[in-house]
Formats: sequence, C-alpha cells, structure tokens
Amino acid sequence: MKIAVLGGDGYCGWATALYLSQKGHAVAIVDNYVRRLWDHELGAQTLTPIRALTDRLRVWQNLTGKTIEMFVGDVSDYDFLFSAFRSFEPEAIVHFAEQRSAPYSMIDRKHAVFTQVNNVVGTLNVLFAMREFLPDCHLVKLGTMGEYGTPNIDIEEGYITVEHNGRRDTVPFPKQPGSFYHLSKVHDSHNIMFTCKIWGIRATDLNQGVVYGTMTDETALDEALINRFDYDDVFGTVLNRFCVQAAIGQPLTVYGKGGQTRGFLDIRDTVRCIEIACHNPAARGECRVYNQFTEQFTVLELAERVREGAAAIGIEAVIAHAPNPRKELETHYYNAKHTKLLELGLSPRLLSDELIDTMLERIRGQRERIDASTLVQNVRWVPEPSARAAESLPA
Amino acid sequence: MKIAVLGGDGYCGWATALYLSQKGHAVAIVDNYVRRLWDHELGAQTLTPIRALTDRLRVWQNLTGKTIEMFVGDVSDYDFLFSAFRSFEPEAIVHFAEQRSAPYSMIDRKHAVFTQVNNVVGTLNVLFAMREFLPDCHLVKLGTMGEYGTPNIDIEEGYITVEHNGRRDTVPFPKQPGSFYHLSKVHDSHNIMFTCKIWGIRATDLNQGVVYGTMTDETALDEALINRFDYDDVFGTVLNRFCVQAAIGQPLTVYGKGGQTRGFLDIRDTVRCIEIACHNPAARGECRVYNQFTEQFTVLELAERVREGAAAIGIEAVIAHAPNPRKELETHYYNAKHTKLLELGLSPRLLSDELIDTMLERIRGQRERIDASTLVQNVRWVPEPSARAAESLPA
Repeated sequence: MKIAVLGGDGYCGWATALYLSQKGHAVAIVDNYVRRLWDHELGAQTLTPIRALTDRLRVWQNLTGKTIEMFVGDVSDYDFLFSAFRSFEPEAIVHFAEQRSAPYSMIDRKHAVFTQVNNVVGTLNVLFAMREFLPDCHLVKLGTMGEYGTPNIDIEEGYITVEHNGRRDTVPFPKQPGSFYHLSKVHDSHNIMFTCKIWGIRATDLNQGVVYGTMTDETALDEALINRFDYDDVFGTVLNRFCVQAAIGQPLTVYGKGGQTRGFLDIRDTVRCIEIACHNPAARGECRVYNQFTEQFTVLELAERVREGAAAIGIEAVIAHAPNPRKELETHYYNAKHTKLLELGLSPRLLSDELIDTMLERIRGQRERIDASTLVQNVRWVPEPSARAAESLPA
Repeated sequence: MKIAVLGGDGYCGWATALYLSQKGHAVAIVDNYVRRLWDHELGAQTLTPIRALTDRLRVWQNLTGKTIEMFVGDVSDYDFLFSAFRSFEPEAIVHFAEQRSAPYSMIDRKHAVFTQVNNVVGTLNVLFAMREFLPDCHLVKLGTMGEYGTPNIDIEEGYITVEHNGRRDTVPFPKQPGSFYHLSKVHDSHNIMFTCKIWGIRATDLNQGVVYGTMTDETALDEALINRFDYDDVFGTVLNRFCVQAAIGQPLTVYGKGGQTRGFLDIRDTVRCIEIACHNPAARGECRVYNQFTEQFTVLELAERVREGAAAIGIEAVIAHAPNPRKELETHYYNAKHTKLLELGLSPRLLSDELIDTMLERIRGQRERIDASTLVQNVRWVPEPSARAAESLPA
C-alpha cells in the first residue's frame, strides 16, 4: 500500500514510517523539520541525538534495500501539499504533522494561535486535497485521548448513544479538552467528521494516549536510525521524564496529587495500530474513531513503577509532589474504552518492569547529555501575575 | 455600562450598537469594514444602501446627543485589539466580528480556511486580552443554533445531562455543525469554555437562530441610520430572500423538500437578548450558553407565510422547489430549548403577517435596486466535477 506519513521526521512519525516500510509498504515522509526548530527555540535537545533525515533514509536504504520517499515542506502550504500528493498518490495518509505539545500551546497567545492555526489549516488542506483528487484515499489522523477530558462517565470510542426525554440518538462524544493543543485536535475532529459526511471522505481518527519508549525493531537496527527521546518540560512525556529523573538521581516530580489518570501505550504499539488502521480502511463517508492506548495509569502509579524499576537496578529514586502547572482535576473517575483496535488484531505490549529497566539503562548510558534544567516545568496554565504583566505588552 | 460591540458595522452589530446606546450604555464599535468588502467581492449589494460608519455615527449623535466611539481595525490583529480595549476599557464585550455566512465558507478551500482562521483567531485574541487586563469583563459571544446540527433528541442550551452505564454527568451538548462557518463557531465555543475554566473568564455564548427583519426603533429614526438588508445567495437569510422574491414576482425557491426546521428571531429581539445578557453577566469562570431564537419553522412553512402575506397585499407568489445546494437532512426531528432568555425577561415578538407585509412593502419601495441575479445560489456544498477540476489547480 502507498502510505504518506505526514510528520514522518517526528517521534511517532519516524517510528511509523520505518515500520510501514519494513512491512513492505511504499512509504513517503512529508515533513518540514519544524520539530527540530522547536528544540532550538526551547533550548532543549533529544537525549538521543538524531541524524538529518537524508542521512537516516540513506542508512535505511543501505540496510534494508527499501526506499522511503521524502517531500520537504509544510502541510499548511496547500501548493506544496498538493504537489507532494500529486507526485506520490497515496492510498493512505497518516497525519502526524501537527504541533503536539500541550505546554507549547500554553506558552503565550502566539503559541496558542500558532498551534490552532497550524493544526487546523494543515488538516483542512489534507481534506481538501483528498476531495480534489484522492477521493478513495483513507485518512488516518492522529487525535488524542485528551480530546475527551475527564468526564464522570465512561469514555466511548468517538460516539455515544444518548437517551434523552424519551428519544435516542448516537452523537459525537462530548469533548472537554484541557489545553489549546488538545482543543486544536477537537477542532480537527469536527472538521473531519463534517467532510466525511458531505464529501464521502474515509477517515479514522485515532485518539492516542500518552506514548512511551523510543526503540522499535526498526530504529534499533542502526545508530543512525535512532528515534528522538524528549524529556524536557515542553515536549517530554511523563514516563520518559520520570526515567530521566531516576537515572540522574533526581526526585520524580509528580504534579499535584498525581491522581490524574490517562491512557498509555508503548511506541511499538503505536506503529502497529497505524498499520492496522491502514489495513482496515474506513468506508466512504465513514468517520471512525478508535481510542489508541493499551493501559490506564495514574501519574502516581507510573512514578511508583519507575521507582520500583530503578530499585531493581540499584537506583534509589524518590517521588516528590510539585505544584501542578496545569489546571486539571487531580483525582477523577476515568474509564475509557479501547476495544476496537484489539478487535482488529492488536495484541498490546503492556508496560513491563523490563521495559522500564531497559529505558533506565539506556538513559544512564547517555547521562552526560542530560540537561537537568530543561526538566523544570516553566509553562503555567494560569500565568503568574509577573509573567502576565510582561506579556501584556503586545508583541 | 461600557459595552464594546465588535463587528458593530454589520447587520446585527449595527442594530445592537444603536439599541445599547439608546438605552444609555457607553458604546464603542470595533470594526474593520470587511463586511462591506465582501459585498464588493461577491458583486452583491444590500437592498437598503448604507452610509459610511462615520456618517452614521455623526447622524446618531446629532439626533440623540449620544456618542458612539469607533475603533477601526481587525480583531484578529492583537496589537489593534489590545489598544482599543486599553483605550475603552469595556465592562462587556459583544462579539459579532466574525465571518458569518455558511455559503461564503463553502466557496472553496481559501474561503473555508479564511473563515476558520479569522473567527478562531479573533476570539482567541479577545480571550487573551480579557485575561491580560479585563479579568472582570463579560464576553457576550455570538454563536449559532447551527452548532448543534439536527440530532434526533431535544437540543438543550449548551449542556446535557447524560446517564451512561450507571453513571451521570452534565457535559457540553454534542455538536454536529453543517458548514465550515458553523464549525468555526463550534471551535470558538470549545475555546471559550476552556478559558472560562482555567482563567475564570465570564462568558455567555448566544447560539442565535436565523435573524429576519432590518428595522429597529433606532434604525428607523433617520434614513442615514438604516440597517443593511442582504438578500443575495451568500449573505441573504431565508425570510429576507423570500420577501425579495415575492416583491419582484419571482417564485420563492425552497431548497429540496423544505422540511429543514430552524429557530428564527426578529432582529428587534436580537438586540434585546444582547442587552439582557449584558445586564445579567455570567459569574467568574462561568461559560453560559443560551439558545437565542423565539420560534421554530420549517423552510416550507416560512415560504407559505410569505405567500400568504404577499396575497394580502395583492401579490401572487408561488413556491418552487430547487435542488438543495447544501448537504443536510431535509426532514428531521427538531426541538430546541430556548427558555433561558425568556426567564431573564425577553418577551418575544413573534413573526406576524403584519411584519411580513411591512417588509414586502419596503422591498417594493426599493424594487429598482434589486439585482435578481444575486438570488441564484451558486455555492455548492459538494462541488460539481467541472468546478472541482478548475479548483484543483493550486492557487
């Protein structure tokens, strides 16, 4: 199958592109390298240094004999996207090409506006291009479990059947996202659902949980293929960050009570979920929603798992509660369904002590590269008065 | 009360600004005249020619002794908005400053992207400015009944209490909008709800129905104060268009079966609803949603009302069914609640034969200005293949 991976130079996108290529699909990466730019902006670096995309792809070809095409440009630039699609003619489009950090979107007004415009316009461009000349192509769009928020009822996969005043209907599951980034994905979901209805677009909206790990069978083949590993306050995700803190002997910082429950998955399951979605396309006009995660944990449970894993290899880690930079419920009901990908054949790799230990060992091996200052959370959902005053100068 | 009316040069905005000024509020209009530009773009004209805003405001001052301040600029330009708010320091912000036509948003990709970026960024700017230095100000934001779509259950005012698998929660009412414009309002609603939660913004989201009529007590005071009256295929609303068709002896064109049911209100009720919302501000952190309409009709019922009204003044109008340019259900359940504004004191002016007759007479008086060619609906929700081919050249 011909699959375009938008955002294929990023964390999930890179692992996905290699996996799909290894499985025999014809893969094209569409990326503008902006994720690398954000590292410069934030003064952060991936723990595992990553090569130029051209190098990565050359090594992949030398090792496997497989070619991945490359289109360098911005998905929010319709002329570019149009010509890339015209040239590659994908049968499936895997769309990771969005600004994906909640803290980044909360830095200030400009970052909020950038995140929403970038993500919404990029996805609109993909949908219009599909309508124009890829009517049978299947969009596999990365959403987020964060679109749902933390309602006091079970979270279904995209839709809920409601009985109300004696009538019944199946309607989109109500969304209560918790950052301008998560909101941008909600906007996308509504836009996608509409175009499926009016233009007959085929779409699968994958509401992904928090991803952990970096290594897949493919990225492990050569050092040049290594994936990025983010542990900074803006792009680092929680399990990766805890492991880095443990490896350098710092307390694992749990924001607030740590009762925040979220869905999690191993990056090796991310890539398999994507392939499953591609192999089982949505029907014309269908907007399918899958919740893409394998386990739920509270943040405190995760910290405890890392503490135990660390103890097993002789590291004594402590857990420290820090003020929560976000505004969110710190204890709440959470029960999100995630059976649809299992029904299509996903057999999950659950979080194991072994995985944690392997991560910890790898991080210890890169210890000298860790910049502990980037672990400190500087972005606040509700800015301090002083920060507000500085920001209130229009700029 | 100091009230800023964003979009105060437009159809609802102008009537609202005058009404609030007449009621003794200190009013400022913030507008960039883009609505006038769209007339030029589309080759359409308001039936009732409107004066320059400076003229309108001068006449208003001469007649009433009341001054309305004017800030000319774009709400999506944060520097401008910031300085306008700094200067005027509003206690309530009435936000009409959005692209409000569903067909306009469906013209092509560029118009879809423009509509969503313009509306979403403008509203984000308002919210950030409120956070920065107007923490106690009340946002009165115009949404649309079209955010809800046509679910098979009763439509509540913004929120619905759901029982699901033995648990219960009150959640945002699920949204199923039917155009890129309606989607932009859904995006706004989610953004507003989030900022109420995290920053304590006070907001009232008014999901307005289809507005008809032009005359209010204030606009009737002088010819220079007359409101715009749009009957073209892009900005004209259905009752106004039917009246124009009847007045020039053309069939009233009902799209499809005409069973599409919507909420409607008289523009004289629009302005009163706005004042009611301003007088009863939301609490800090509250995101209140009111459904702002007074009656439900099917499109066919409206056509029949106009036919009867026309007959009463000696015009024989016929109803013709035309292919529906939109993709929507043409017969459906529709029962939308709208009690909250009534509870706060709105006494509705329901659609009367007298109003229809007055509108018809006025339109007859302007007969020679009517351009019948602009009544033809040219925008298609699903473009014809030929239109698609032309559009598929990136431009």
